[in-house]
Amino acid sequence: MSLLVIGTVAFDSLETPYGRADRVIGGSGTYISWAASYFHKPVMLQSIVGGDFPEHEIEALKNRGVHTEGLEIVRDKKSFYWAGRYHDNMIARDTLVTELNVLADFNPVLPESYRNPEYVMLGNLTPEIQLSVLSQMQRRPKLVVLDTMNFWMDIALDGLKEVIRKIDVLTLNDEEARQLSGEFSLVRAAQAIHQMGPKYLIIKKGEHGALLFSEGHIFFAPALPLAQVFDPTGAGDTFAGGFIGYLARTGVLTFENMKRAVIYGSAMASYCVEEFSIDRLKTLDMGQITDRVKQFVELVRFDTDLKE
Amino acid sequence: MSLLVIGTVAFDSLETPYGRADRVIGGSGTYISWAASYFHKPVMLQSIVGGDFPEHEIEALKNRGVHTEGLEIVRDKKSFYWAGRYHDNMIARDTLVTELNVLADFNPVLPESYRNPEYVMLGNLTPEIQLSVLSQMQRRPKLVVLDTMNFWMDIALDGLKEVIRKIDVLTLNDEEARQLSGEFSLVRAAQAIHQMGPKYLIIKKGEHGALLFSEGHIFFAPALPLAQVFDPTGAGDTFAGGFIGYLARTGVLTFENMKRAVIYGSAMASYCVEEFSIDRLKTLDMGQITDRVKQFVELVRFDTDLKE
Repeated sequence: MSLLVIGTVAFDSLETPYGRADRVIGGSGTYISWAASYFHKPVMLQSIVGGDFPEHEIEALKNRGVHTEGLEIVRDKKSFYWAGRYHDNMIARDTLVTELNVLADFNPVLPESYRNPEYVMLGNLTPEIQLSVLSQMQRRPKLVVLDTMNFWMDIALDGLKEVIRKIDVLTLNDEEARQLSGEFSLVRAAQAIHQMGPKYLIIKKGEHGALLFSEGHIFFAPALPLAQVFDPTGAGDTFAGGFIGYLARTGVLTFENMKRAVIYGSAMASYCVEEFSIDRLKTLDMGQITDRVKQFVELVRFDTDLKE
Repeated sequence: MSLLVIGTVAFDSLETPYGRADRVIGGSGTYISWAASYFHKPVMLQSIVGGDFPEHEIEALKNRGVHTEGLEIVRDKKSFYWAGRYHDNMIARDTLVTELNVLADFNPVLPESYRNPEYVMLGNLTPEIQLSVLSQMQRRPKLVVLDTMNFWMDIALDGLKEVIRKIDVLTLNDEEARQLSGEFSLVRAAQAIHQMGPKYLIIKKGEHGALLFSEGHIFFAPALPLAQVFDPTGAGDTFAGGFIGYLARTGVLTFENMKRAVIYGSAMASYCVEEFSIDRLKTLDMGQITDRVKQFVELVRFDTDLKE
């Protein structure tokens, strides 16, 4: 199996009620690659950074089995940078700084070795770039997962709809699902979004869990109730990385296996938020991941008194 | 087993995005009694109404096995009346009218036959009334469940804390749990609330489900994703009625059985919101209830690939 990931590799500065972190490693491509690497190798990462991006962070990715042939380094420019401050509820956040830097000129040309992946994770980027990546495939991948956000619905809805038509799984949050569909009920939103193309839809609800929809079936994965969320940055990307990583590892695209992939993605996200940046993702092992999956099993397990 | 319910029996006027209902039957005691009656008979209802309350609605309760000896009728006064308008999201609502009427003088004196219940459901009322009811018990009931709201935290916190010390199960919503505990994390809120007395805590999250906490254990019950919520009024009371009704029916107070009770309560609430007032609760049967419980099983069911 081969897994292609495209997304940002960047710096973040964060303020949360629990502390601050200055110019730490961030970016959708980073979180997705780290999370996916626990399930499947290699991960082929396509992204762009400036000359300021630490060499040892690229080495750390390589040591996790992440191919970086498609990670363009523009020596005389700076990496994408985002700074934000989270509100007390750790959900709402204000963007303080967005410096596109190298991302302004990102026009990914996939290396030859990246052009025939079975699994493709299109991290949150302009629909134009996401379409360009898909157009470079030698054949239709087995599965394409797309993450996006309300920003592209506001400024590039036509392009977004075009890419949504070409993919298999769309992930977005509940407010974005409502915006994209014009429906308040998530059940109706899912019906409307299925009509736009994707067979599978994952609606992420943060601390309220995630819903997987496909062909009239609904699966609900709770979020683990945590005593403390330290830094929510990257939780959605980490979820996506765990999700597609698990699918690439197992190679089975049934609804039953998608459910397991959602649980593994949720387990990865629940670790991500425990520390700033990718710090917690660097120290995980498979035992810890399966421990958390077992916690999910316990969290929702009940025996009915009904006869089958 | 005997089950005592105290709460309001009242009229509601409602405006939702789907229509309006004028002076329909409402009140926490009404919803709780209707829901509980599907699981356990008799339900002993303690409440107060005016001379304007329809006789046939009282007859309908009696026909469901609800005892109304403790339902005081004040012929020359009017019943409690509440009017509200729901926002488009069907969660936020504005109160348009609150007329206490008979409720202003409600000072319940339990009939002799009500004074030795095994199960007690204290619906949302002033802490003073809730305490008075508990003081009239001939002996400590097997289980006391309390529902309350932020309003009492604002104006009667000391009394509320006094009643909370005397009960077994507290139900409130997530914002109320945060207000009562001063903790944002629901895990920490639950720890703080357990310290106040109740062994069990149920945090209701509306469309996001409910959490049951006890002694370090957490159970998550999802809400059924619905294509349309017609009228959310009474959903929390209906949940409570199904919850305590199921416990009174089964008589088992283990965490495992509490989990099932939460699922049955959730199933009842999911029906309640399908129509205005108690209309849907009047037409249910046990087959429909167990069908919905099976939907809950399906909604969260997944098989891990882990060895036990």
